[in-house]
Amino acid sequence: MTQSVPQPLNPPCRILMGPGPSDTHPRVLAALGAPTVGHLDPYFLQTMNEVQDMLRQIFQTQNKLTLAVSGTGSAGMETCVVNLIERGDRMLVGVNGVFGGRMKDVAERAGAEVSAIERPFGEVFSPDEVAAAVKAHSPKVVGLVHAETSTGALQPLEEIAKIVHDAGALLLVDCVTSLGGVPVKVDEWGLDAVYSGTQKCLSCPPGLAPVTFSQRALDAIDARKTKVVSWYLDMTMVRNYWSDSSRAYHHTAPINMNYGLHEALRLVLEEGLDNRFARHRRNHLALRAGLAALGIEYAVAEEFRLPMLNAVRIPEGVDDVAVRSRLLNEFGIEIGAGLGPMKGRTWRIGLMGEASSSRNVLLFLAALENCLSAQGASIQPGSSVAAANAFYSSAG
Amino acid sequence: MTQSVPQPLNPPCRILMGPGPSDTHPRVLAALGAPTVGHLDPYFLQTMNEVQDMLRQIFQTQNKLTLAVSGTGSAGMETCVVNLIERGDRMLVGVNGVFGGRMKDVAERAGAEVSAIERPFGEVFSPDEVAAAVKAHSPKVVGLVHAETSTGALQPLEEIAKIVHDAGALLLVDCVTSLGGVPVKVDEWGLDAVYSGTQKCLSCPPGLAPVTFSQRALDAIDARKTKVVSWYLDMTMVRNYWSDSSRAYHHTAPINMNYGLHEALRLVLEEGLDNRFARHRRNHLALRAGLAALGIEYAVAEEFRLPMLNAVRIPEGVDDVAVRSRLLNEFGIEIGAGLGPMKGRTWRIGLMGEASSSRNVLLFLAALENCLSAQGASIQPGSSVAAANAFYSSAG
Repeated sequence: MTQSVPQPLNPPCRILMGPGPSDTHPRVLAALGAPTVGHLDPYFLQTMNEVQDMLRQIFQTQNKLTLAVSGTGSAGMETCVVNLIERGDRMLVGVNGVFGGRMKDVAERAGAEVSAIERPFGEVFSPDEVAAAVKAHSPKVVGLVHAETSTGALQPLEEIAKIVHDAGALLLVDCVTSLGGVPVKVDEWGLDAVYSGTQKCLSCPPGLAPVTFSQRALDAIDARKTKVVSWYLDMTMVRNYWSDSSRAYHHTAPINMNYGLHEALRLVLEEGLDNRFARHRRNHLALRAGLAALGIEYAVAEEFRLPMLNAVRIPEGVDDVAVRSRLLNEFGIEIGAGLGPMKGRTWRIGLMGEASSSRNVLLFLAALENCLSAQGASIQPGSSVAAANAFYSSAG
Repeated sequence: MTQSVPQPLNPPCRILMGPGPSDTHPRVLAALGAPTVGHLDPYFLQTMNEVQDMLRQIFQTQNKLTLAVSGTGSAGMETCVVNLIERGDRMLVGVNGVFGGRMKDVAERAGAEVSAIERPFGEVFSPDEVAAAVKAHSPKVVGLVHAETSTGALQPLEEIAKIVHDAGALLLVDCVTSLGGVPVKVDEWGLDAVYSGTQKCLSCPPGLAPVTFSQRALDAIDARKTKVVSWYLDMTMVRNYWSDSSRAYHHTAPINMNYGLHEALRLVLEEGLDNRFARHRRNHLALRAGLAALGIEYAVAEEFRLPMLNAVRIPEGVDDVAVRSRLLNEFGIEIGAGLGPMKGRTWRIGLMGEASSSRNVLLFLAALENCLSAQGASIQPGSSVAAANAFYSSAG
């Protein structure tokens, strides 16, 4: 057989301001290329311990079962669902975007009897409506999305966690986009099963899913009568490999991806969580000031906006695809299209992790002005950059 | 909260001669650290096409549905099983090692009615006994392990594939350790669902699972009456993302891991499959000559031995853990312990991908002589190195 070998890779240097992956720090890229060791090497076991310890700090939890699942954020979702659900268990899912819809699908496949409460894309759930649904359905597990990457909406959780626990249920939360960008207080709020992804505000390439389980969740797992439907994601086995006392072989961990995550988590903790949250908020507000000067509006009410994912309405008469293509091809800037009912109507502008910088905000606004002018849109040239700079000056 | 930040990683430079991961070529490590782009970036879509094209060459198949699953080899196993199995389907699994046992467990969790045929660790199945079991159980799917990483045994497949197809069943095969080290002729042999891992003879770090599905397998997937139990591994959706015509978003692909795999596959094809198989065989035979000089025997009959995974009996009176620790700590060489009933009784010496070299064979034998002498074993000093060198001289 004649073999055909493609050229070596030579990826372009993008600025990743979409819904993820976000920009990766050079220190993380360098860590990915460190020498591979075995998955039972004492050095790697120490690396795993440090990854777990740093994840606990970032999840703000003491949970023993805190680790990085060997798959992307969606594998984290599936991990949380399949470990808590047995066939016939009742689960209540809040669907106000693509990822709530995905969670419902995952739970149904795992055999749950799923009830859904729904909200239009861009809205969030009130404690009262969750309380009513919990009362009506008596679920074992309630699943909500903290930061809906598809809509840019932030779901408040603290009051809801109390309602869920008072009803004897467990609260399962999608923090894929929120972790590292806004507070995720697992212990203080009382979240029971939480998953995230590496490629959003942690600024590590996609490939791992941080998860954490409360003691209540562990008790539910220990009380299972049937095996977890997924062997690969079965925490009753995976936790032994990640546990100091056992280290029982389960599957071969993605060694180099864990190196990358280790360095990404170090960067988060070097900056400090509070500084990091403040940075995400500051750049979000600067972007907002710039967009306002162009007459571009958010798709989400102000109090529920995600600072790291700005879902905004595409101005009337502006060609969605043409603008995104020009941003990518002329300036190397990626932003995201709308998903689901928001497709063609919104842009999703990410300011996640490393990508949340004043440099990116100014560049993006300047480039967007270029693209809108090319479309013949009526804008005041320079107004968005001026507005963002004015915000930075006033905010100090 | 006071944050505690560990030191940067500084992994030791091991020589990985265990059951995987194997040594990673510096070109692959460099590729892992290339700039991250978005998962829908035109550049990444082209990268995916090239990965698929190279995987087809290495699997020796024209199968359209050939791609890298976003998880390790065990996720590849689960992918093949859950896409072909619906609740109540019959599956026949050959269990002659840890990974056959794992496949049975995965299939049961997916709802299959599983029948198992068993062989002691280190043995393989004859076509006749598979034929008898297929006749007795009329399975929809027959699952076998081509290269049992836990025992070092190679299962011949060509005759069995014919038997399975004549009975109207599908053949699902574990090629985690064989792909890239011995021929895996998916089309010629007629394999229907095949999975592998990146960290064995492909010499890429763990984290992705190459899979390929025949048209027969696709027809079975298209005829499903129920959804695949795993959302994350559902090929009816994943294949749209990996298809030129659709590119529908499913989950965020592990971008940088795919960079690494791309470079690893380039290295395989640059060498050429036949050259690569011959190299694995040559170094296996040299190692065998060296071990024979030390009186160390294989745990598998000669005709079924894997060249890339040498399962050998630990000499009487020699301390398993002490030897492996000394190899690791004095010489930076990792070899594998026995698994299951072979624990404490065998070593698993990997000569996989980059690690299959005359340099590693000579070094390992010299280091093993050191360790055996330290244990007071009665050996002829220098004899194993001399025997391996004699083999290399005679083999040219």
